[in-house]
Amino acid sequence: MNFASDNVSPQCPEILDALNAEASGNAPAYGSDATSAQLDTAFSKLFDTDVAVVPVATGTAANCISLSALVSPFGGIVCHPEAHINEDESTGVAFFTGGAKLMPLDGPAAKLEAKSLDAFLASRVDRGVHSVAPECVAITQATELGTVYTAREVQTIGEICKKRDLRLFMDGARFANALAHLGCHPGDITWKAGVDAISFGATKNGAMAVDAIVLFDTSLRSKVEQARKRSGHLYSKHRYLASQLLAYIRGDVWLNNARHANGAAKTLCDMLVSHGATLAHNADANELFVKLAPELAQQLRDAGALFYPWPSLGEDIYRFVTAWNTEIAQIGLLNDRIAHK
Amino acid sequence: MNFASDNVSPQCPEILDALNAEASGNAPAYGSDATSAQLDTAFSKLFDTDVAVVPVATGTAANCISLSALVSPFGGIVCHPEAHINEDESTGVAFFTGGAKLMPLDGPAAKLEAKSLDAFLASRVDRGVHSVAPECVAITQATELGTVYTAREVQTIGEICKKRDLRLFMDGARFANALAHLGCHPGDITWKAGVDAISFGATKNGAMAVDAIVLFDTSLRSKVEQARKRSGHLYSKHRYLASQLLAYIRGDVWLNNARHANGAAKTLCDMLVSHGATLAHNADANELFVKLAPELAQQLRDAGALFYPWPSLGEDIYRFVTAWNTEIAQIGLLNDRIAHK
Amino acid sequence: MNFASDNVSPQCPEILDALNAEASGNAPAYGSDATSAQLDTAFSKLFDTDVAVVPVATGTAANCISLSALVSPFGGIVCHPEAHINEDESTGVAFFTGGAKLMPLDGPAAKLEAKSLDAFLASRVDRGVHSVAPECVAITQATELGTVYTAREVQTIGEICKKRDLRLFMDGARFANALAHLGCHPGDITWKAGVDAISFGATKNGAMAVDAIVLFDTSLRSKVEQARKRSGHLYSKHRYLASQLLAYIRGDVWLNNARHANGAAKTLCDMLVSHGATLAHNADANELFVKLAPELAQQLRDAGALFYPWPSLGEDIYRFVTAWNTEIAQIGLLNDRIAHK
Amino acid sequence: MNFASDNVSPQCPEILDALNAEASGNAPAYGSDATSAQLDTAFSKLFDTDVAVVPVATGTAANCISLSALVSPFGGIVCHPEAHINEDESTGVAFFTGGAKLMPLDGPAAKLEAKSLDAFLASRVDRGVHSVAPECVAITQATELGTVYTAREVQTIGEICKKRDLRLFMDGARFANALAHLGCHPGDITWKAGVDAISFGATKNGAMAVDAIVLFDTSLRSKVEQARKRSGHLYSKHRYLASQLLAYIRGDVWLNNARHANGAAKTLCDMLVSHGATLAHNADANELFVKLAPELAQQLRDAGALFYPWPSLGEDIYRFVTAWNTEIAQIGLLNDRIAHK
Repeated sequence: MNFASDNVSPQCPEILDALNAEASGNAPAYGSDATSAQLDTAFSKLFDTDVAVVPVATGTAANCISLSALVSPFGGIVCHPEAHINEDESTGVAFFTGGAKLMPLDGPAAKLEAKSLDAFLASRVDRGVHSVAPECVAITQATELGTVYTAREVQTIGEICKKRDLRLFMDGARFANALAHLGCHPGDITWKAGVDAISFGATKNGAMAVDAIVLFDTSLRSKVEQARKRSGHLYSKHRYLASQLLAYIRGDVWLNNARHANGAAKTLCDMLVSHGATLAHNADANELFVKLAPELAQQLRDAGALFYPWPSLGEDIYRFVTAWNTEIAQIGLLNDRIAHK
Repeated sequence: MNFASDNVSPQCPEILDALNAEASGNAPAYGSDATSAQLDTAFSKLFDTDVAVVPVATGTAANCISLSALVSPFGGIVCHPEAHINEDESTGVAFFTGGAKLMPLDGPAAKLEAKSLDAFLASRVDRGVHSVAPECVAITQATELGTVYTAREVQTIGEICKKRDLRLFMDGARFANALAHLGCHPGDITWKAGVDAISFGATKNGAMAVDAIVLFDTSLRSKVEQARKRSGHLYSKHRYLASQLLAYIRGDVWLNNARHANGAAKTLCDMLVSHGATLAHNADANELFVKLAPELAQQLRDAGALFYPWPSLGEDIYRFVTAWNTEIAQIGLLNDRIAHK
Repeated sequence: MNFASDNVSPQCPEILDALNAEASGNAPAYGSDATSAQLDTAFSKLFDTDVAVVPVATGTAANCISLSALVSPFGGIVCHPEAHINEDESTGVAFFTGGAKLMPLDGPAAKLEAKSLDAFLASRVDRGVHSVAPECVAITQATELGTVYTAREVQTIGEICKKRDLRLFMDGARFANALAHLGCHPGDITWKAGVDAISFGATKNGAMAVDAIVLFDTSLRSKVEQARKRSGHLYSKHRYLASQLLAYIRGDVWLNNARHANGAAKTLCDMLVSHGATLAHNADANELFVKLAPELAQQLRDAGALFYPWPSLGEDIYRFVTAWNTEIAQIGLLNDRIAHK
Repeated sequence: MNFASDNVSPQCPEILDALNAEASGNAPAYGSDATSAQLDTAFSKLFDTDVAVVPVATGTAANCISLSALVSPFGGIVCHPEAHINEDESTGVAFFTGGAKLMPLDGPAAKLEAKSLDAFLASRVDRGVHSVAPECVAITQATELGTVYTAREVQTIGEICKKRDLRLFMDGARFANALAHLGCHPGDITWKAGVDAISFGATKNGAMAVDAIVLFDTSLRSKVEQARKRSGHLYSKHRYLASQLLAYIRGDVWLNNARHANGAAKTLCDMLVSHGATLAHNADANELFVKLAPELAQQLRDAGALFYPWPSLGEDIYRFVTAWNTEIAQIGLLNDRIAHK
């Protein structure tokens, strides 16, 4: 009963099969193989627009390499303080961009609000070379606190970026979970809303290790590929990245995995609430942030559940994360164990 | 009949099995899992000394992260002009080290010669902050041209480094092939010879995607782990890196794979020579650099062999690389096809 | 009547004389000259402890080079949001340190408060390589808002740093003004309080262009000198930096200049208050932040006074800066002109 | 009798006067002053084309900041091994460019030869992201070994750059000496020949401390100014840089200074040759590289001459540098002292 993270799950059967299918015979290295050749087409079809796909093995790489192509070394990146790029990637952004500065802007439940973003940008006094000018806005979809921007919210942020000539980047480590929640077309919350590039996460949602940089502005490809190479993120046996991604999006595996995880989160949420837990905020995707009485927290632990306290949200707040492989039956079992206490 | 590179091969059965064995059930992320926990012990046993093991997915990452822990941003790294870090990793070394400078020093067949290294170092005039002082020597074992340093040669270079207070780094992308050739203990050509850190390559020799940074100076671990994280090379599902490495060194898989590749290279070499090819230089490991008459080169291509010209060594020089999965029978078949022309 | 900045002033007579005294005859380059040779001794005497002095031409260089020697590329630097390193040096800190992160911590009137600093540091959850660990605290003395840390305040911050094994850096662009206000020994608010390095500013207080990096931890010298060279801050005609610094501290020129500027600020303050202005906060040194009624602001402008609005402190708040060359009589004249309106 | 370097000289009278003229009264900071406002116009007139001028205090800063605007972090810079950027600026180029690689290409007397440059560029195999592609050619005029490219030579290199879409940068630390030698218009060996940017040196030829980045491609201005700021090279009292530059080019001061230095070098050369010295190579500007018999070298030293051995050119080779203030009479005196031995 592991609710510690979606990173604890293994790859899903479809991806395992795809990896094993690559495991015989030789193939050209560094992305010249037949599997890798399918990426651009497959993702262009998925997004219904021409995209460039550059796969890497981790989300930090996908985020930082993307940002290095979107901002100058002198620029600023507006993001939520809770953003993974701000809180969980060490000094990666500065390293990859050559010094660009993160500009945390608070908002409820890890979301940037259009209104406060606009006000923040409007209030910046441009002091030329002395100050850092925002060049990019980075949002996470679904957010680090399990909330999801609506299509309209992303579009409004996109309009603000366009108006001010800023780039818009999306950390989509849990993009599938967001989309499963929204039920819209992937284009609606990306390129149609003005997103220039996205980290299209797969690792947390059924892959072994792959996140794709998907570039809606395909002119960024060369810079991204150069940054990928020199940062050591170009796989020699590139087909193993490509095959994961293709299996991930084939036949809606990615969305089905996400729907399952989101559903499990809802089931878990209902169960916890029935025992007196209260939500810290909306749980849109596969992460729950709930307030638990100390006794309940202890009962859950005693019953075998793994989960983390989340002190930044306050005392007695805990995070539960579900994944593509969370067993609904286990939640029922957990409920039984607590109920009998 | 793919002799283009050892990167074209898939993972070997033992590693495939190990990966699949991880593919069920949850496990803690970022290296806290039980598989990853075995790495230090397993490699310490292998090398017969205490080591710190930090796995990453690519050789470029292993090399550049290691070097970033060994030199300052103001320092120099002496290496052969043919070194992968000099010729094949874009501007990776400067990126990871924050500016350190590669100092190419020529030598026969991609090897640094102790004598010329010593002379080079002795001839450097220290002009304080104006000039770049060598801080590290980097050698590749086996080299990019398929030659192998003898244990004595590595030891002599190690002594030179020690005398001048320089770090010694080994790019071991094909370390197994070197060791299979030498038949010595892995410690003999590493820590006993003064090597501080090695990129312990597995990808080219049977893994899917993993090279281990093995630190003989274990005090470097913290810096290496920080550099790994912020460069996006820390896998969340770390067990997939660890399991490859453990399977790789278990039961001599790595050496057996290398012995096979080296043997195939010898068979191929004999065959080519029998058709008039001449060696550009010694072929110690699994790479051949041979001079082929244009007709022979064409016959080989016609017969289905894939291989690259190597213009930096001269006209009509070609590279052939064998791997753990090269079929000896195919070399015989190739011979037959040519012979019948 | 220029109260826009202390940067608008020329060099003071003593420094002009010293520069002109160097302007004849040859001298060894890059700091090997006789003038430069006096720096360490002169400043060691001034601070009453052994220091290493590395002069550069700008405050940004002094701050950023110092910090690059104090923190790792993975580390954090706690500073006030108003700090020059955070607000006025573009992405300089990340550039020089290779990625270190500024961690703004608010406090009244641009000062870090010991209590909140301690609480901030205590509350940081160490998440290993994922999060950025504070490695240094940077304070500005006098602050960017014209306030001055008491000796006791610096000492308390120093104790916090020591307790947590953090470096303590002081941006002393207006160190003389702070000292003139406090009347203590320069050692009391630097090395005796645990400061590792200071940007010892001279440019704003009578020099043409020189700020000295003064290292109380002299083991940092080599790293600082290397960083200075490769960032282009090592003057070939180094004597021109050294001569300014020596003239600056000789015969208390620096303190006399600062006393004059502080006194002028007080006179100006009294005058403005007499016309209804109110202080935004304490004016300890040579900068005033005052609230002016729109009419008064306009009268001052009409009377020929140059000064800037300071919107970050609120509406109708303005900054006035005095310098070593501010004429007290001009303040009287300004008063007369306003009074007659 | 200081022939150690042209860096040992003080500023010339015209520049001293200009500095002193600025030394009274206030002026806006950071380049908003009236003196700084004249730079673009004055240099545009000098070069007979629209240029952007960005002054800094050192040649290393001028070179490295310029290059950071001309190449990407992934790119290569072809230069002579003797180039100051390769041999004398520590790891400055990699630091400022974020990792760009110097590609030393040998040639006689510190000059890149068009023929070998073309051959070098033609021979580069483009291996995509794996290899570093040259993006810029950097030449020094006059060179570090005292030779001067003819206008035709620069133009031919410019054509090669244009043909291959490479940037052309000129390190003009001794640009005045080169021009004094050639007698052509400054535009002939810069923008008309395809030079994108030049470090227009003044420090070695009569200034106190200023070299100007002169951009013929004025679109680079913003990037250069941002790089200047964050590297700490933007003077607050900018007028002191500007006034030096304006005095330097007013009334041909720069060319007269250079003509004097070049003439003194010729006189010194003739004198040394008359005593048996032989030139290592042509002495076009103000630097001599001569072979001296040990006795002659000793006699010169005994007679009070300061000069350096130059071991990279061979045994018994010495460098003599003259400057704007070298006294011809002293050379006569030196001759007398030797002659009497």
